[in-house]
Amino acid sequence: MQIQDLAQTLGAHVAPHLEIEITGVAGMAEATSSDITFLSNPKYIAQLQNSQAAAILVSSNFTGTTPMPCLRVSEPYLAFAKTIEIFHQKPLPECSIHPTAIVGEGVKLGTNVSIGAYVVIGNHVSIGEGAILYPHTVIYDHANIGAYAILHSHSVVREEVEIGDRVILQNHAVIGADGFGFVPCADGTLYKIMQAGTVIIEEDVEIQSLTAIDRGTIGITRVGKGTKIDNLVQVGHGCDVGQHTLLCGMVGLAGSTKVGNHVTMGGRSSSAGHLSIGDHTAVGMNGTIMQSVEPNAQISGYPAMDLKLWLRVIAEIKKLPQLVKRLRKIEKEIGL
Amino acid sequence: MQIQDLAQTLGAHVAPHLEIEITGVAGMAEATSSDITFLSNPKYIAQLQNSQAAAILVSSNFTGTTPMPCLRVSEPYLAFAKTIEIFHQKPLPECSIHPTAIVGEGVKLGTNVSIGAYVVIGNHVSIGEGAILYPHTVIYDHANIGAYAILHSHSVVREEVEIGDRVILQNHAVIGADGFGFVPCADGTLYKIMQAGTVIIEEDVEIQSLTAIDRGTIGITRVGKGTKIDNLVQVGHGCDVGQHTLLCGMVGLAGSTKVGNHVTMGGRSSSAGHLSIGDHTAVGMNGTIMQSVEPNAQISGYPAMDLKLWLRVIAEIKKLPQLVKRLRKIEKEIGL
Amino acid sequence: MQIQDLAQTLGAHVAPHLEIEITGVAGMAEATSSDITFLSNPKYIAQLQNSQAAAILVSSNFTGTTPMPCLRVSEPYLAFAKTIEIFHQKPLPECSIHPTAIVGEGVKLGTNVSIGAYVVIGNHVSIGEGAILYPHTVIYDHANIGAYAILHSHSVVREEVEIGDRVILQNHAVIGADGFGFVPCADGTLYKIMQAGTVIIEEDVEIQSLTAIDRGTIGITRVGKGTKIDNLVQVGHGCDVGQHTLLCGMVGLAGSTKVGNHVTMGGRSSSAGHLSIGDHTAVGMNGTIMQSVEPNAQISGYPAMDLKLWLRVIAEIKKLPQLVKRLRKIEKEIGL
Repeated sequence: MQIQDLAQTLGAHVAPHLEIEITGVAGMAEATSSDITFLSNPKYIAQLQNSQAAAILVSSNFTGTTPMPCLRVSEPYLAFAKTIEIFHQKPLPECSIHPTAIVGEGVKLGTNVSIGAYVVIGNHVSIGEGAILYPHTVIYDHANIGAYAILHSHSVVREEVEIGDRVILQNHAVIGADGFGFVPCADGTLYKIMQAGTVIIEEDVEIQSLTAIDRGTIGITRVGKGTKIDNLVQVGHGCDVGQHTLLCGMVGLAGSTKVGNHVTMGGRSSSAGHLSIGDHTAVGMNGTIMQSVEPNAQISGYPAMDLKLWLRVIAEIKKLPQLVKRLRKIEKEIGL
Repeated sequence: MQIQDLAQTLGAHVAPHLEIEITGVAGMAEATSSDITFLSNPKYIAQLQNSQAAAILVSSNFTGTTPMPCLRVSEPYLAFAKTIEIFHQKPLPECSIHPTAIVGEGVKLGTNVSIGAYVVIGNHVSIGEGAILYPHTVIYDHANIGAYAILHSHSVVREEVEIGDRVILQNHAVIGADGFGFVPCADGTLYKIMQAGTVIIEEDVEIQSLTAIDRGTIGITRVGKGTKIDNLVQVGHGCDVGQHTLLCGMVGLAGSTKVGNHVTMGGRSSSAGHLSIGDHTAVGMNGTIMQSVEPNAQISGYPAMDLKLWLRVIAEIKKLPQLVKRLRKIEKEIGL
Repeated sequence: MQIQDLAQTLGAHVAPHLEIEITGVAGMAEATSSDITFLSNPKYIAQLQNSQAAAILVSSNFTGTTPMPCLRVSEPYLAFAKTIEIFHQKPLPECSIHPTAIVGEGVKLGTNVSIGAYVVIGNHVSIGEGAILYPHTVIYDHANIGAYAILHSHSVVREEVEIGDRVILQNHAVIGADGFGFVPCADGTLYKIMQAGTVIIEEDVEIQSLTAIDRGTIGITRVGKGTKIDNLVQVGHGCDVGQHTLLCGMVGLAGSTKVGNHVTMGGRSSSAGHLSIGDHTAVGMNGTIMQSVEPNAQISGYPAMDLKLWLRVIAEIKKLPQLVKRLRKIEKEIGL
């Protein structure tokens, strides 16, 4: 693709009359002499000297110089993502209903849906226009799947669950299985509480592989629009996760946790139940939240605390044995 | 439903001649003026003033006053759970064997079973009376499934595994896959040890979504009757989990751990292998057990320690940088 | 089996003319009087006195005495593993293609493959000689499965992924689902980055149940030959895991982590992204790696640090409240 055409497609500014054939897209280090790369964070500028890239996407207000021609865009990382789509096209399955798919009674199928082999759709389900259900997807009764949703193989949508438009479920995502609710009885046994609630996944959410979003006893477990959830995450019964929030791999939310909008929870961070995590908060890897968190906080640690404090704490924790020695020395010195 | 009828169904005591139509059940805050709610823990009594509920389930020995009529029962939370079952009925799949189900040789099917679409049952399997296998369940050879067991879609029961009566497997539970056993060889490679053991899940156990209970080299991995296991849990090869125990979300048990009866392991708590956790012990969220634990203990932390001690420790951990400053000041003061 | 025949099969040295019929194999404590057991670690030698075993596998250079006859071998634990295979044979599914399996266009099937019920194989896939695909396995387009690979039920191999010879996938392993890559846009939304990379699983790898190995934006996520990965593990997009390495249950690797050869990562240990973990390093249970690690290190803790230091630190952490009291006392003593 000619660089001028690429610039036009991306809405980028490039030196006129420049003529380069771009054949691919790659990171700075991996780019070949016909690839385009990108500079999103100025701290990587030094690495540009060693890059073979034919051209580079930079921010409109970038003032440095680069060894290769620039395409100036308002959001270089976003332009990079769009460039990947130009050079790597993934074919989608064809719009058809595989003869082995089992479709229940009273099911409404939108136009142009793709229903793969051995998909099982329960009764009174609605599947939106253009939705793609890969083989071995199972949809229980009375669930709704939004338009242009993509459900990968072995994903499960349980009874009455609502899946919004353009939602993506990666393989083995489980939406709406029973929450963990039991009554501890006087005789020492545990009595299962019927999980009569449901789950709503709003539009443009992605839920990755092997993640469970549970239904609760009563009421709704919700994941807000545009939120992205990584692999092996648990969203407990009755949680309310906000919009445009990131839950990284192995995050665990106990029941009835409220997570705000634009939150980032790092890998394997977790929250006790019935807490509230404010908008725009960032939780570090492995942070263990044991009390509610204000908006705009940056926290980490076990228990989770202010990130800067945690960084000082872990610096000191390593010196704890030395610290004890110093204390003993003082005690000796003053005769304690 | 008339409140007198509800009281009779629940074995509750209510003022005679009271006439209220109850149409649903909800938490205190959510209850409408025709819902019944419950008070299990007296600490929530203040919230009652703001509740719209038409009536409330309280303990037989409750002595306070409530803004709405009481139904007195010996176990209010249990009565609440049973009330949910009255107002929310979930239809079960019909008793039939779907024509696409594949049933192996020598399989014994109990009466009134429900075998869903695309279920695969191996050879010499036994399925108890009234068991429900949702679509896409796979049972390997020589496994036994107890009476009235409920296996949700994509759950797997591996070869020779025993599943007790009334066991519930939520979606993608994997019972009896190979344990993690390898011989580190002299040449640096890892030689797989055949996992010739099996798994026994006793009656009334529930295992939720995406949880793995592994078989071991030899012998039995056991989950005792009435125990409940949440999502994304690992029970390693050769573990012996007691009865009426709760393993919350993301709990990890390494191989050959012995967990007692009536234990509660909080979310993401874990145990090293070959340890023993005594009866009635409670492990806090994220607690990391590195040595065996006595019965009736309350522990938390990394490493897990007495809960009260851990709470004091985490209070002090946050002050560690200050503590170091105080130490420096003392050293200066006394000339060290 | 006569002990002389067993010795010959294992290449073991045994007293000539000894005649014992061995009927099984078990651990020291469980062995009956016709079982063989093994002693790999000399620290268990005292327990031998109580063992009923008919014979024992010991190291060639073992100098102690045992209450039962010895079979001397260079690697007793390995010999034990091979003995299990003699006494416990697991039948494999027959070499056939089940009539319900769906095989796409342009698929190359090796000889003697076993394709189970309801397996779905995409277009242009290659399945090596002797490979076994259990029921409900799904292979996306353009993937390759090596010779003698074993894929258990509900395992998934996504588009273009390469699975090496003799690889074992336990149930619900997901290889090559999309990595967690999103552009945070100026308007606060998250834009999905096409995951155009792929995954290569080299020969002799085992990946256990409910584990996800993700593809990345561009390039390859690799698991090196002979490596073994337990249940519920995440290997993030773009990771490079070395050879003959062990990732125990619930390990989490964030994106672009580089793990060396012969590494052992203990249960639930984890690494932040873009770090490097050197060859032969051992990471303790729950260790949280926040900076790159040299080869041959032994580390544990949160944050991960030298194991010996961590053991001293956790000994002191428990004394933190006392330590604060001592500090207060000193301050009082010297008038601060």
